[in-house]
Amino acid sequence: MPSPRWALPDHIEDALPFEAARLEAMRRRLLDEFRRHGYQLVMPPLIEYVESLLSGTGKEMGEHTFRMADPFNGRMLGLRADITPQVTRIDAHLLNRQGVTRLCYAASVVRTTPRSLLASRQPMQLGVEIYGHAGIDADIEVIRLLARTLEVAGVSASRIDLGHVGLFRALARRAGLSDVQERELFSILQAKDVPALDDMVARIGASAEALRHLPTLYGDQSILARAAEVLPDEPGVRTALAELAAIAAAVPELPLSFDLADLRGYDYHSGLVFAAFVDGSPAAVALGGRYDEVGLAFGRARPATGFSVNDLRDLIAFGGPTELPGAILAPAVRDAALEAEVQTLRASGEVVTRELPGHAGTWREAGCDRELILQDGRWVVVPLQGD
Amino acid sequence: MPSPRWALPDHIEDALPFEAARLEAMRRRLLDEFRRHGYQLVMPPLIEYVESLLSGTGKEMGEHTFRMADPFNGRMLGLRADITPQVTRIDAHLLNRQGVTRLCYAASVVRTTPRSLLASRQPMQLGVEIYGHAGIDADIEVIRLLARTLEVAGVSASRIDLGHVGLFRALARRAGLSDVQERELFSILQAKDVPALDDMVARIGASAEALRHLPTLYGDQSILARAAEVLPDEPGVRTALAELAAIAAAVPELPLSFDLADLRGYDYHSGLVFAAFVDGSPAAVALGGRYDEVGLAFGRARPATGFSVNDLRDLIAFGGPTELPGAILAPAVRDAALEAEVQTLRASGEVVTRELPGHAGTWREAGCDRELILQDGRWVVVPLQGD
Repeated sequence: MPSPRWALPDHIEDALPFEAARLEAMRRRLLDEFRRHGYQLVMPPLIEYVESLLSGTGKEMGEHTFRMADPFNGRMLGLRADITPQVTRIDAHLLNRQGVTRLCYAASVVRTTPRSLLASRQPMQLGVEIYGHAGIDADIEVIRLLARTLEVAGVSASRIDLGHVGLFRALARRAGLSDVQERELFSILQAKDVPALDDMVARIGASAEALRHLPTLYGDQSILARAAEVLPDEPGVRTALAELAAIAAAVPELPLSFDLADLRGYDYHSGLVFAAFVDGSPAAVALGGRYDEVGLAFGRARPATGFSVNDLRDLIAFGGPTELPGAILAPAVRDAALEAEVQTLRASGEVVTRELPGHAGTWREAGCDRELILQDGRWVVVPLQGD
Repeated sequence: MPSPRWALPDHIEDALPFEAARLEAMRRRLLDEFRRHGYQLVMPPLIEYVESLLSGTGKEMGEHTFRMADPFNGRMLGLRADITPQVTRIDAHLLNRQGVTRLCYAASVVRTTPRSLLASRQPMQLGVEIYGHAGIDADIEVIRLLARTLEVAGVSASRIDLGHVGLFRALARRAGLSDVQERELFSILQAKDVPALDDMVARIGASAEALRHLPTLYGDQSILARAAEVLPDEPGVRTALAELAAIAAAVPELPLSFDLADLRGYDYHSGLVFAAFVDGSPAAVALGGRYDEVGLAFGRARPATGFSVNDLRDLIAFGGPTELPGAILAPAVRDAALEAEVQTLRASGEVVTRELPGHAGTWREAGCDRELILQDGRWVVVPLQGD
């Protein structure tokens, strides 16, 4: 049986009034927080040429991106599945600032396939980026702001996982891996497939031995000392461990945990990577990290670090108001004193709904819980009578 | 020469920080106004099955809608070019309320071709709808709210044009026109092509004579009396003229003008139609009207009236703040008193940007115009030194 005309595609939803009000309130609350921290809002377009969307951090998004031909010139357009490459393009080409640039965004993206069985194909992505600063201070600021974001959203991070792509890169270089081997090893580590890892290391030889330690290096801050003992003492390893230790020292109040085999976003990340989890959600609600070489795809490499919340819906699911504020019903009579009272109430932030004739008994479903009535010659607000 | 990788498609733009801040502020201001009037925000998705998007008020949007196949089932999806049909679907099927339902929305739509030479293919559409009330009171409320919207946006309506599709329908019925003739006549009236109109009326005969008056019936309220004189006295004509007169009487403060040959949105409008113009813009900034039969496409016809602003950018072009508020630069030192001052300033609504080491002289481009310095043991805000 064909779906009725009004059925929505799978993993595509409307936000009805209650959910829409919560999303809107959360969006504003978080954007205001970003703004107060000096992050300037940008609004890149929903569609762009695919080669632009799939540059830099967008490389992995090809299979997730809807495409359509531009009737103007036949070139292929993509419906954005990620906003980060667009913000990188804006920093690289449009703003063209010499110094540090802090940008933020909050808007919908569309994916051909959802991230998970319960996820939407149209998540509302929200995030911040710092361009132009290569130091660990920028990473610390971003991680602090991520924690603050969750706090402002009314949810608390149960865990922020830290990793560092530089570790794997240093060990892969030391082992002299080919690109194909590196990619294979990457998949093995992502899957934490220890037998396959042992097997591959055995094939490569002693130079790869250190890679076998990575899947065991997870837990609290103490694993950084253990990593320094078991991993080869070379610059890439030292830098990565020093950066992780600096972050741990800077934000002792955060629930950090470490996972040195975490290679999330390996394609474009160049250093620190992190993921935030909240109680009650198995998947990360926000992901971030450093991706210094990405602007190069747009002709201007600038150091970059940032985070993004995958879907604003994940945050309202764990926090935010639980009901819409009630509205006041104003009768459909023309009266100057009534008009004045309606305006005063609205100016004070109240929702005042005008009655339209012939709908007695249906105003509660429209959200009204009070009404204006004339009492002793004055308009006063009383609880809504009737059902 | 191919465009560089970062070039955007024609009629597609980024909103950079200044414009994005203005759009965001205007969006909030208008949604807050709608909310205070009892309109509940909904957020329909960017993509839907095309047959759903092109139902009802969406009928005319076929050629303007980007399409792509859903990898889940091969069915054709459309990227919405108009939000109104989606809101109608929500009223008809999801909310399913018996009484009056007031909904509003503000979000991007995408068109294969722009509305005009200077328009964007991704306008930010914003509007309100009242479902479930067939009376003129709902139309009056919507026109008042449109005027209020422009006022809140800081622009004033130079003219609100009113028309009524019921007039043409009554005269076409009286003349016994076939569907083909009705459509031809509709095009002629849209173009105000008087010779072609005379020619067609001559072919049809005396029953069509009254149609020749329509293009002459425009101007101020006095044309309603003239219309009553020259048009045949029949129910459809009487109702339309009475509704137009009722609106004129209800909102004497608005700059109304009348155009009885205006058939904008004829495909789906059933009664009153209107368009708002602001000084300095040749095209209407907002369009609206009644479309009572539209929900039928979704299986539940409900009376409906509303308006939409074509592109929020049109409103910020004529009003809104003219510069971003300046930010305060806080030095990159760790100091509890400084942290406290930064938090106090942010809580008061100020933007405080943290310095990152090594970028002296570049903070003005990031929007800073003041800085925090230590003076006599206290952190104080002073004008930003240096360039």
